[in-house]
Amino acid sequence: MNKQKLENLRNWMAKNNMDVAYVSEPTHVAYFSGHVSDPHERILALFVPLEADPFLFTPALEVEDAKHAGFSYDVVGYQDSENPWAIIADELKKRVSTIKHFAIEKNSLPVRNYEALKHSFDTALFDGDLTPCIEEMLLIKSETEKQLMMEAGDWADFAFEVGFNAIKNGAKEFDIVAEIEYQLKRKGVSKMSFDTIVLAGANAASPHGVPSDNTVKPNELVLFDLGVIWKNYCSDASRTISYKEPTKFQEKIYNIVLEAQLAAQQAVKPGIKASELDKIARDVISSYGYGEYFNHRLGHGIGTTCHEFPSIVEGNDMIIREGMCFSIEPGIYIPNEVGVRIEDCVFVTKDGCVPFTKTPKELKIIE
Amino acid sequence: MNKQKLENLRNWMAKNNMDVAYVSEPTHVAYFSGHVSDPHERILALFVPLEADPFLFTPALEVEDAKHAGFSYDVVGYQDSENPWAIIADELKKRVSTIKHFAIEKNSLPVRNYEALKHSFDTALFDGDLTPCIEEMLLIKSETEKQLMMEAGDWADFAFEVGFNAIKNGAKEFDIVAEIEYQLKRKGVSKMSFDTIVLAGANAASPHGVPSDNTVKPNELVLFDLGVIWKNYCSDASRTISYKEPTKFQEKIYNIVLEAQLAAQQAVKPGIKASELDKIARDVISSYGYGEYFNHRLGHGIGTTCHEFPSIVEGNDMIIREGMCFSIEPGIYIPNEVGVRIEDCVFVTKDGCVPFTKTPKELKIIE
Repeated sequence: MNKQKLENLRNWMAKNNMDVAYVSEPTHVAYFSGHVSDPHERILALFVPLEADPFLFTPALEVEDAKHAGFSYDVVGYQDSENPWAIIADELKKRVSTIKHFAIEKNSLPVRNYEALKHSFDTALFDGDLTPCIEEMLLIKSETEKQLMMEAGDWADFAFEVGFNAIKNGAKEFDIVAEIEYQLKRKGVSKMSFDTIVLAGANAASPHGVPSDNTVKPNELVLFDLGVIWKNYCSDASRTISYKEPTKFQEKIYNIVLEAQLAAQQAVKPGIKASELDKIARDVISSYGYGEYFNHRLGHGIGTTCHEFPSIVEGNDMIIREGMCFSIEPGIYIPNEVGVRIEDCVFVTKDGCVPFTKTPKELKIIE
Repeated sequence: MNKQKLENLRNWMAKNNMDVAYVSEPTHVAYFSGHVSDPHERILALFVPLEADPFLFTPALEVEDAKHAGFSYDVVGYQDSENPWAIIADELKKRVSTIKHFAIEKNSLPVRNYEALKHSFDTALFDGDLTPCIEEMLLIKSETEKQLMMEAGDWADFAFEVGFNAIKNGAKEFDIVAEIEYQLKRKGVSKMSFDTIVLAGANAASPHGVPSDNTVKPNELVLFDLGVIWKNYCSDASRTISYKEPTKFQEKIYNIVLEAQLAAQQAVKPGIKASELDKIARDVISSYGYGEYFNHRLGHGIGTTCHEFPSIVEGNDMIIREGMCFSIEPGIYIPNEVGVRIEDCVFVTKDGCVPFTKTPKELKIIE
């Protein structure tokens, strides 16, 4: 348990008059407790009373793992045959005499769990939303966090290298994915931030396309979107390359996206608004007449999860601050024809930003 | 949209006096609509009014994919810059004049989404829980579903074969994982049901251990737990093998787990209770004095997700029925010493069950 993180959480609780905070999102439980786990349908929770010691609640079979992860307070386990909510209620009542206000993670807590807890504490109010508190805590990355994200970015660069080397006439999209993940896993990088995307030709025109046995063919673009989870921190980057000479049209579309990506990335600095960054990239693409084909936001925050607060999008006038990390990923997708996306995630510095991935962005032509 | 599934849902709604059902869990949206998607923090939803056409609500960039997936009613998209809840409210009000009762998926719907919808329909009651309705619909598998799960099981058997072939002195756990997933991906099997587990020696004594650079050594057991997602259906199976001769103790523990697994699997038939199956396996292990080291339930349902209803656990007196599919996975985990788990998922037949995986369960010794 990181004392500073705990103190930040308790400061928020005190300010908001909360007696107990219920941290339920597994990556957030990991952020505070050090215990990394995906409990599936079982219950994993960190309960933090304002004025008593916190405790971690886990399935029985994870109690040992949680202790080894360095959580220094009580770890309470439950058997699959037990009612977890009864145990949680007992443990809370042991520690806190009266609970009037609960804070919960509204963005992720299922209604079922909320109602189960409400059932045990029927006079308490569940009027605290932990989501903005934790989002704010996660928002500004420390030097240590930045370093881990740099390492995660290095692995993404490595993955691009493997992927580019696997490009050849007739290579299937999923063969290239297999090669990338194989080489990463053999280096001990066992988790991707999301399913690796390799899409060739018109397949790339679907921004959420799925790699298939579609093969790479000469004079087609190939879109890569990938990232890894490294020591709990994510990377996420996209590159689009050309197999053999691109057509004039492909090259034109590519260069528009590149201009948009670079314009937005160069504009990043403390004080600018998220919405302004989105607009800078969008204006470039629109000025060439392709605005309607850039049908998603410019980017998203990144950290212990691949998509986190904030959204870099029209309408979000949040001021960018030093230490924030987010993606800049404009794209143009012309159905059945061509898809291009170029993406780096960046760390905001005092007067600009540093990208986590370094793979060059000029159009690479693989012969 | 599958008409029969829609009709089953509407029958439940009519019986429970529900005006609108809000299906939010992505695998359930896929089950009804055919559109497979992980929307991350974006909103993906299927709204089914009792007396008007359903509509699918997706991020704008997925509208085309959803239509291609064969959803035959309206697909409503929203841009990242728009408020999805305002659009949803408009669409619902267009279709249904008065909404008094909403059914939601309490097991998975986050409190935030529930509150957002409640805000737009402040006089409606959110008193229907879709979770048991959908669980019941998913519970009994059709012949087509059984066939897909058989195929998913075949891929798990293939994965064991690859994994067993990769065992050699000094092989790292994560190298074996890399090899398994590489061979699967090259065959077009792109998704695992969960992160593949390969644990050697004492590492296997943690039921949720994570593969590392720990190497396979002679006279150690190696535990495999893996599964794939194949055409939206999951497999999940575990085998434990011995690298070179096992010790007498390892062999003893192995055979106790095997006896427990076979006893439970042979007892499966319509009419028996879930809790009885758990007890049969647990009694075997306890009779040898290792009950405390079998610290999880016997199994879980499986289908379009790897862990679904029902839980095969003490206290669950649900009657097993023909067509149900679940795992039978007893284990013994003696900290710092040895871990054994043996698991097949089965399909319940008229008078017994059929396993989805066929890899032999007698202790395999790899030389």
